[in-house]
Order: sequence, then C-alpha cells, then structure tokens
Amino acid sequence: MRIRVGIVGISGFGGGEALRLVAGHPSFELVYAAGEGSAGSRLADRFPGLPARLAGLVIEKWDPEALPQLDLLFASLPTGASAEALARVPRAVKIVDIGGDHRAAEGWTYGLADIWPERIAGQSRIANPGCFPAAALTALAPLLADGLIEPGNIVIDAKTGISGAGRGGADSRFGYAESNETLVPYGLLQHVHMPEMARAIERLSGGSAAGLVFTPHLVPMTRGLLATIYGRGRATTAQCLEAARRFYAGRAFIRVTDRPPQTKWATGSNLAFVSYAADPAREVVIALGVVDNLGKGAAGQAVQNANLICGLPDTAGLEGMPVWP
Amino acid sequence: MRIRVGIVGISGFGGGEALRLVAGHPSFELVYAAGEGSAGSRLADRFPGLPARLAGLVIEKWDPEALPQLDLLFASLPTGASAEALARVPRAVKIVDIGGDHRAAEGWTYGLADIWPERIAGQSRIANPGCFPAAALTALAPLLADGLIEPGNIVIDAKTGISGAGRGGADSRFGYAESNETLVPYGLLQHVHMPEMARAIERLSGGSAAGLVFTPHLVPMTRGLLATIYGRGRATTAQCLEAARRFYAGRAFIRVTDRPPQTKWATGSNLAFVSYAADPAREVVIALGVVDNLGKGAAGQAVQNANLICGLPDTAGLEGMPVWP
Amino acid sequence: MRIRVGIVGISGFGGGEALRLVAGHPSFELVYAAGEGSAGSRLADRFPGLPARLAGLVIEKWDPEALPQLDLLFASLPTGASAEALARVPRAVKIVDIGGDHRAAEGWTYGLADIWPERIAGQSRIANPGCFPAAALTALAPLLADGLIEPGNIVIDAKTGISGAGRGGADSRFGYAESNETLVPYGLLQHVHMPEMARAIERLSGGSAAGLVFTPHLVPMTRGLLATIYGRGRATTAQCLEAARRFYAGRAFIRVTDRPPQTKWATGSNLAFVSYAADPAREVVIALGVVDNLGKGAAGQAVQNANLICGLPDTAGLEGMPVWP
Amino acid sequence: MRIRVGIVGISGFGGGEALRLVAGHPSFELVYAAGEGSAGSRLADRFPGLPARLAGLVIEKWDPEALPQLDLLFASLPTGASAEALARVPRAVKIVDIGGDHRAAEGWTYGLADIWPERIAGQSRIANPGCFPAAALTALAPLLADGLIEPGNIVIDAKTGISGAGRGGADSRFGYAESNETLVPYGLLQHVHMPEMARAIERLSGGSAAGLVFTPHLVPMTRGLLATIYGRGRATTAQCLEAARRFYAGRAFIRVTDRPPQTKWATGSNLAFVSYAADPAREVVIALGVVDNLGKGAAGQAVQNANLICGLPDTAGLEGMPVWP
Repeated sequence: MRIRVGIVGISGFGGGEALRLVAGHPSFELVYAAGEGSAGSRLADRFPGLPARLAGLVIEKWDPEALPQLDLLFASLPTGASAEALARVPRAVKIVDIGGDHRAAEGWTYGLADIWPERIAGQSRIANPGCFPAAALTALAPLLADGLIEPGNIVIDAKTGISGAGRGGADSRFGYAESNETLVPYGLLQHVHMPEMARAIERLSGGSAAGLVFTPHLVPMTRGLLATIYGRGRATTAQCLEAARRFYAGRAFIRVTDRPPQTKWATGSNLAFVSYAADPAREVVIALGVVDNLGKGAAGQAVQNANLICGLPDTAGLEGMPVWP
Repeated sequence: MRIRVGIVGISGFGGGEALRLVAGHPSFELVYAAGEGSAGSRLADRFPGLPARLAGLVIEKWDPEALPQLDLLFASLPTGASAEALARVPRAVKIVDIGGDHRAAEGWTYGLADIWPERIAGQSRIANPGCFPAAALTALAPLLADGLIEPGNIVIDAKTGISGAGRGGADSRFGYAESNETLVPYGLLQHVHMPEMARAIERLSGGSAAGLVFTPHLVPMTRGLLATIYGRGRATTAQCLEAARRFYAGRAFIRVTDRPPQTKWATGSNLAFVSYAADPAREVVIALGVVDNLGKGAAGQAVQNANLICGLPDTAGLEGMPVWP
Repeated sequence: MRIRVGIVGISGFGGGEALRLVAGHPSFELVYAAGEGSAGSRLADRFPGLPARLAGLVIEKWDPEALPQLDLLFASLPTGASAEALARVPRAVKIVDIGGDHRAAEGWTYGLADIWPERIAGQSRIANPGCFPAAALTALAPLLADGLIEPGNIVIDAKTGISGAGRGGADSRFGYAESNETLVPYGLLQHVHMPEMARAIERLSGGSAAGLVFTPHLVPMTRGLLATIYGRGRATTAQCLEAARRFYAGRAFIRVTDRPPQTKWATGSNLAFVSYAADPAREVVIALGVVDNLGKGAAGQAVQNANLICGLPDTAGLEGMPVWP
Repeated sequence: MRIRVGIVGISGFGGGEALRLVAGHPSFELVYAAGEGSAGSRLADRFPGLPARLAGLVIEKWDPEALPQLDLLFASLPTGASAEALARVPRAVKIVDIGGDHRAAEGWTYGLADIWPERIAGQSRIANPGCFPAAALTALAPLLADGLIEPGNIVIDAKTGISGAGRGGADSRFGYAESNETLVPYGLLQHVHMPEMARAIERLSGGSAAGLVFTPHLVPMTRGLLATIYGRGRATTAQCLEAARRFYAGRAFIRVTDRPPQTKWATGSNLAFVSYAADPAREVVIALGVVDNLGKGAAGQAVQNANLICGLPDTAGLEGMPVWP
C-alpha cells in the first residue's frame, strides 16, 4: 500500500529533510510539494540530488483548499504561519505539523514518539515537538518518571547547530562570516520553547516545573543539538542509566550510553542519545540528550509520528545509520 | 539471497562509510569487520549509531587467512598496506579495494563504475578509483570520448574536504585548530594520483596525457570534492553539456547540470555532478566534477562496483538522497 | 602629527577591518564613521571591542558634503555606490576607495602598493585593488616582469573565504547552514574581476592578456584567499623563486616561500605569500598567491596605500603578526 | 627600556599566541624561544608571518640552566611538565607560567589580573589562570563580592574552542574531520579545572564552594570560550550589571554588556565580556563570561600579568581590537 504524501514548507531546512526521508521511505509516495518563495520552480532545481522518479514535481503555491488527493501532509512552516491554514485542510488528510503552532493546541496530539507512542497511534493531527524539547525531554523523561530529580528545579543549557535558526537568511546575523567561529547565547530566561518543556515536565512528573531555566546557544555547526541538564536529586549515575534503559527498553531510536554522547553521533539519523552523571554528595544529576535538530528534532520524529498514525512500524524509512564523519 | 560481506579497515573514514552503506544495503549482510588499532573492541563502541542487529560484532584483527565464510570483502587500507595481504584472500571471495594499491595492478579491474560498467561486471578483483580521479575523470570522460579537448594539455585544480587526508590524526597538521579556517595547496606537480589520472585519460582519448597538471588542495570541510578542470578546445558550452548528457544517458548517479555544482549537492550520496563552461574564442573548456570524496570518491563507488560484480542493480543500497544542509 | 581619518561603509566587513587597523595606527585618529543601515547607532554597539577612547563616536548617515574636517577617507561601499558620491568629497580630503568603482577610472591611481609604490606616493585618489587581483597579481608580477610566462595564456583558479562575498546577508545562499561544508565555484568565464586583472597583466608584461581565464570559488572559511595560477613557460622553480625574491627585495609585506603557502599564514595581517613550482618539460609554471582577503585584499592594502599618500612608512600600523591558529 | 623576554613552549598554541603578543609589544624584546619537538628549527619556519627583525632566532632545546640573559620568561608547557624545570630558572628571571602546574603552588601568585592586580604587581612568579577559570571567575567575581549569589550552589556550563585542547594532535579525536560539526561534552563532574575555580570562589566569597558543578564542552571553532553560569539568589538583572560595572570600574579589559556576549567579540584580544540575566521569582541568576581562550584565557592574560610585574601599564601591547569577522 502506497501512502500519498505532501510536504508544505519544502524550501525550509525542516521541509528539505522531510523530503529526503519521504523519498527514501518504503511506503510513502511524494505527490505534492508546496512552498512560498519557491512556488513555481521545479523541485529538482531546488534539490539537485532528487531521485529521477520525482523529477516531474513542481513546487506548488501553498493552498490548503486546493490539495491533490493526499493521505498525509507534513507541514514545516514558520511559527505563526500554520494554525489558520492547517485548519482548512480536509479531515481525511492526516497532518504532522513540524512547526510550532499546535504544540499546546486543542485537537492536536503532542508527538513525543518515543515517550508516548500509544497516545499518537490512531490520531490524525500531530504536533511535532520542537528541537530543544526533543533532546531535553528524552533525557529527562526517565528521571522524572522515576522521581530521581525534582521537577521544580531544572536547568537546561542547550546548544544547537545553526540550521535550527531556520533558513530565513535575510538576517545577516546568520550569515556565514558572522556565525562562523562564534558561540552565541540568546533568549535568556525567555525562550519560546520554555512553556512547551514545562508542560511536558509536569506531565511526566506530576509536579510543578515552576523553576525551570532554559538557555539556548547557537553553535557554529550546521546540524546537531545537545541539552546539558542540571537537576537536583540523590540518585547515582548507575541508577540514572538503569532508569533510562528500563524506560526506553524496546525503543529503536533511543541509545543510553555510559560515556557522554557528542552531537555527531546522531547526524542524519532519527537517533537520540542520552547519558547521565550524578553525585549524590552534591545532590546533582547531570542528564545529556543529543539529537540531530533536523532528525529527531524535526523531520525524523515527524516521519516516526507519521508511521505511528499510519499504522506502520515506527522505524519505517528511518533505519539509516548516522553520517560520519 | 543474502551476500555475506566483510570490511577491513573499518576504523578509517572509507571503512566507516562502507559500513554505513553496507548496513543499509538490501542484499548485503555484514558478518566481518576488521581493523588494526581497533581490533578487539566492539563495533558498536566505535559506531554508536550502529543498528541493533549488528551490535554483536567485534572488530577482528585483520588476517586474510582467517576469514569467516565471505562472499565479498571491502578493503580500505592505507596505500602500501593491502597488496600483499589481499593476495592471500581466497579467490572465492570477491574484493573491492578502496585503497590505492591495485589501481594499476595486473589481475585487477579499474572500477570507474559509471564509465566502464561492462568491464567490471563479472570480475572478482576491483580496484576502486581514488577520490580525485573519480571526480576529474567523470567530468573529463565525455569531452575526451568526443575529442572536444586535447588530452595532452589538461590542468586539474582539485579541492577536497579534509576527510580525504585519512583518519591518521597523528599528524597535527590535520588537527582541527590547524586545519580550520585555512586552505592548503600541496603536492605541486607530484601528487600520487597523477599517474592514475593520466592512464585513464589516455584510455578514454587514445592520445597522450603527457602535459597533465594536477594540483590538490585541502579545504576546511569534512566531506566534498571538486575538480575544476581547464582544457583546450573549440567546443561551446552547449556542445560539452550535450556530450555529457549523451555519454551518461541512463546512468543513475551522474547529473549533468547547467549551473556550476557545489560539493554539498553530493554529500552522503554516490552522486557525481558535472558541468561545463567553454569559450571557443579563447579555446578554453572548463569542466567541473563534484563528488562526496567518501561517496563516489570511495565507499559509494565501491558499493556500486560490488553491486556490478555481484549481479545486482548498480543502484542497490545507494539510492538515498544527499544530506542537506 | 595626527591624521584625521574617516571611514564610510563602516558596517561592512571591509569597513570593519579598516576600523580595526585605523584604531591601532600610530598616526591615525578616527573622527568620522558613516554607514547606511547602521546610521544613528553608537559605533561601540556595532563593535563591542572598540577602544574606550572611541566610545563617543556615533555612526553618521553618509553625506559627502557634510563631512567634518578630515585629512583622509577610507570608502568601503558596494560596487556602484561610490563613484558619484566620492566625486563630491572635497579635494583636500585624500581618499582610498576600497570598493570597486574607480579601479579603471580617470584621476584615480590603481593601488598595488607593493608593486607600484612610487606611482602611489603623492597622489590623493587611490583605487584599492580587488581581493582576487591582489593575490593573483602579487604572484604574477615577478614572472611577467621577467618574461618567465606568456601573458596571453594564464589560468587563475582562485578560492576565497566567504567574507569576500560581503556582509549582504539578505541572500540565504550565504547563510551559515548553506555555505558551511560546501565549496562553490561561480561566475565561470565572466567574473567582474577579470578586466581588472587583464589590465594589470598587460601593464606588467607589455603583452596582451587576451586568453586570461579566471574562476573564483567560495570556500567555507571566514577569511583567506588563495590564487593558484597556471602559466606557460620554460622557467624552473628556482628561477621563479629567484625572480620573485629580486622583484620584492626590500618589500616588507611580501614573503616568497619555498613551500606552498596556506591562507592562514596571512590571517589578520597585510602579508602576502607567494610561491612557485615549475616543470620546464611540461612548460608549465604554477604560481601561488595567498592573502587575507580583508587584509592585503582590502583594508590592509588600503592602509598601506594611505601610508604612502600621507608620507608615512608604508608599514605604519600594519606590523602585527597574523593570528594563528 | 627594553625587557629581554623568552618563551618556552613556543610550538604550542599558547606559546604561539605569546609570541604574537610579545612581537607586537612596545617594551618587550624576544631573545629566546624554546620548544621540544621543534628545537633546532628556525622560528621563521614555524611562524611564516614572523617579523623580519626576529628572523634570526632559532628554536632552542629547553634547558632552564642554559638560558641567555633574560628579564622575563613565559612558560607554556603541558601540565606536569613545568614544575620541576621552572624551579631551576634563576630567581632574577621573572616567570609567568601559562601552564597549569603552579596555580595552587607555594611561592607563586595566582594571576587573575583584572581582579587582584595589586597582589600581582611586584611579584616574580605568576601562575596564569586556566582558560575556563578566566572566563568563569571574571563573570562570578562581582556577584560573589557583593553576595548576590550563594557560593555553595554554582553550576558552570562552559564551552571552548578546540585550540583549548592543545596542539597535541596525536589524538585523532581532535582531528579536523572528527572534531568538525560536533559538540562534545567531557569530564563530567571531574574536570581538572574544578579545584582551581573552587579555590577562587571561596577566596572571592568567603564561603564554601562545596557544591560547585563544572561541565566543559568542546565547540567546533578554533578560538573562543563562553561560561554560562547558573547561581541562586534574589538579585535582579540590573543589580548584577550594576555590581559588575562597579567592580570593574577603571579596568581596561572587562566589558559589562546589557545583551549576551558572543565569543567572537573577544577573538584575538585580551578582552573579557560579562553579562547577566536574573529572575528573583525563580531565584536564579545567570552570569555569562566570554574570553578568547588563547587571549584572556592564556597568553593575553599572561602578558597583562607580565606588564604588572614589570611595572608597565597593564594594557601595554594588548590594545589591539578583536579580529572580526
């Protein structure tokens, strides 16, 4: 059975990675690609490595009421740009929204696919997690579920590659010469991803996340995201690792490692790596979560969610090894 | 039918990329991995993103007389290290040598898989081309075959990402801080790849390549290789493009483009991009060839060669889109 | 004696580097800084490392008829933007135009400061060479002066860091994620710097540069520029090196090296490195020229030109060692 | 008055940066350079941009008992390699040890030159702070001095460019292809710089630093270091900024900024940037400290310390603006 797939936001980095994964998926057939700036151009002109069988596709102007027959739509639009338009997509079309508009919206299921897969299967409207929450919550979930750290006293120091800032490009701050060879902290005590993480921490722990602190940084690399998380608790390193191995038993995409993971371990894949170091004497627990911000942090997790809502194995089309070096 | 595959030189970059491609190949089953420095360690410790089904593999000490039952061996050893050892591998085991020892050796077929596939099919000892020749010859072949440039008067100015220097690492010149933010020409008028290219140019053109000039450069990026080639002739740009489209008609991995290709178009794939610009008034023809030095320039072409000698479609396991950005 | 200096185009990369050099110059006093987008903001907000003594400066809107009392103006404006405006600057203000509008203009002296310093001293309108010509002509001049290569048969394969594309930023092609990890050839057989180089080659050699071929490439690094040049002639490597050592005897900024120079040797300095390799049998001469595209390729050479027209030692304010690594 | 200066460890990154600063210093004259691997080679061969006046220097084998007449020695040796040898240097030679062996040693003064300059002036044996402590303590000192955060409850999440790992190079982990495009946390809960920071925190605050947590990360850039620090307290952002402006009043190298600093602001300079964000409701104070790890984090601070012990203005030779972009 072929599933007819569309992607809107094809010119952005998230949309481009969705294209790569859909093109390699055993059950998906790309029949529709839409963008704003790129509408009217051939998809192959934008993606010189496009498979020959997709060479006939033209990038359409995005119009939710003029879709071809679709089973599934990936939406990767800038935050603020998708809520109104996606409401007009026919109910029969399943949607995974990679963008940020529906993560707290009624009628949408928050798609942490390795943590709550059973809530996702059977749905038709999935809000994909943000890239920072994907890394941080994957590392935190086992600790919160087992009560190994206090939910109200968590510091997340996160670092992302620059593709996480989107393809906007119009902003010279993200130009190569200015972004290269520099490390940029931003959004101190006010980043847009903080409420999303607080909600999930509360759901995972049953407690309040009131004290949550989150600091994002831009790192001079294209892809990759690491959350270094500081929690309070008396657990040992071994207890944390064991809790994570138990929590993620049977999950294909989560790797619990003894040594600290680096971001390149995940590049180009849907994998997430988590590790832990704890010192009961200082009552500190460090949790590390690594993802590819465009993989598990965006399009990879989106395809995993799509697999779940289409009744496929969640690993379909996502089994490629990371690209190294 | 499963083909039992081994890889020797698993710790190097070429071996690592071969692992990624073999792991994702529909007909290959990895049953043996060998290395020098890494012998005895678990393959999963070296490759944290290894698929779970391969987690039991241990890196063996390389011994050509103590191989398990294999159908196919990929060898990715430093130049000079493979000739003697590969001679001791049983004849029943097909070999693709990614290293440099057999490119002019008797009993071995030079594996330019998009140019001479019919010579490769049916063989059991394939010498994979070097990364520079892979890019340069792919761009040159249509011009030489049609007599559009003089074979005796070719300048190849080539630029490679630093993974092309191998994983040696012991040399601080290739350390990050020294290799970053610098562009390094080397081996002027004397690079080891020059005879390999001259031989192929002569075979393609029937003329002498005596005047060949080749200058390699190290570029501060991990992967990617571009050959910018200057030839003499009166062809127009359109004639060159047309010659290439005809020469590569039906070849899955060669893309002839009107605009100059950049290296990232090929990253993580077995694609090669070629383009041309010519000025009959100045009698100059510029040919551009782009590959991923670890893809078409090493492991990708090796898998393509393996497909050919195993009687598989040459695209098997190589259909993934490039990773972008 | 203090020389009162202004900089227009302060927000661009060339203007910023001029600021750094002027701020460290023993005889220059910055009294005026102008820009377009940045007018009205404090100079210290744009340049957080600005010396405290300059903290009072505000970026002015550029108006050539409302200048404060100035002895010297550095102009670093986009090509096309400076010709009309600079004509309105009072004659008493000496100008070094880092931009491209006056390199073939009447009344302006082309400022190759290491090759024709005696033509520059005493002038008041200097057109600074482009970054590609600065590197290529520095390497070529000794060969052309001595007739060691044919002027009509030169191929310049040049590679620049991305700051050479300017700070425009509005173009997503120069965004970090798209420019990183890729090598981009562009402007084949048609780059804007070609006539500038052809003119200088003809002046240096007395012959025609009709066959000149120039191919620029963007390299994923911030600064640095290498020209790899292919000429025809029967000179030996030793003859080329000797010619260059003689040609540049007593010049402070030109280093003739036996081994191939890399771009990082020049970073942050006004140095240029040249080297040669030749093979009389193949009648080929390779010349290498390395500069920092913002140093000798822009602001460094501009300050050197300013020194010459102000009657200072040409090394004033330019003696800092390159930044390494 | 010329001060006769030697540098031992000239081949490392810290030694190389010391060379650049000494070469540009108005009162220092380099008369001695020593190294291990590089002994016997000309200094100009290692540093192609060396000023012509130093071209006669040859790198000596390091022998503390065979020094020429020196006033001042900079030592930049691997940790563990300097204690015994530096003890044999004549007392008349002032020493600034950039390496790690004397930071807690009797008879040596810990050289936080912007915080305790009065303790440094007049000494002859200075232990230069490590790069992580330089950034972290500069940001923390005003808060600790004013009691705005608890000394016993500090988390330092620090990120450094890869030159911070030294030039060793023998380790392929720091090779370009492996270090590029990845972010690497290491040394969790056990890094060697932790005791050095704890001692200084206790000295600055008068309290115990028992709960100190420090996590270093390697960032794919050559230079630059950021410490993102999480403390507990009820101060406001404005109070923290005000405390820092007061604490560092009159200090030339410390910039207190309203917006978060990025590492490139400091590249190539001895500047440090600090900023703060606080939320009394969550009782959290975030402090940011940015340095160039080879500048204020190593050779820049070393020269500043040398200025102090030689009775020079602490800014001598250190006034150059950062290199941007």
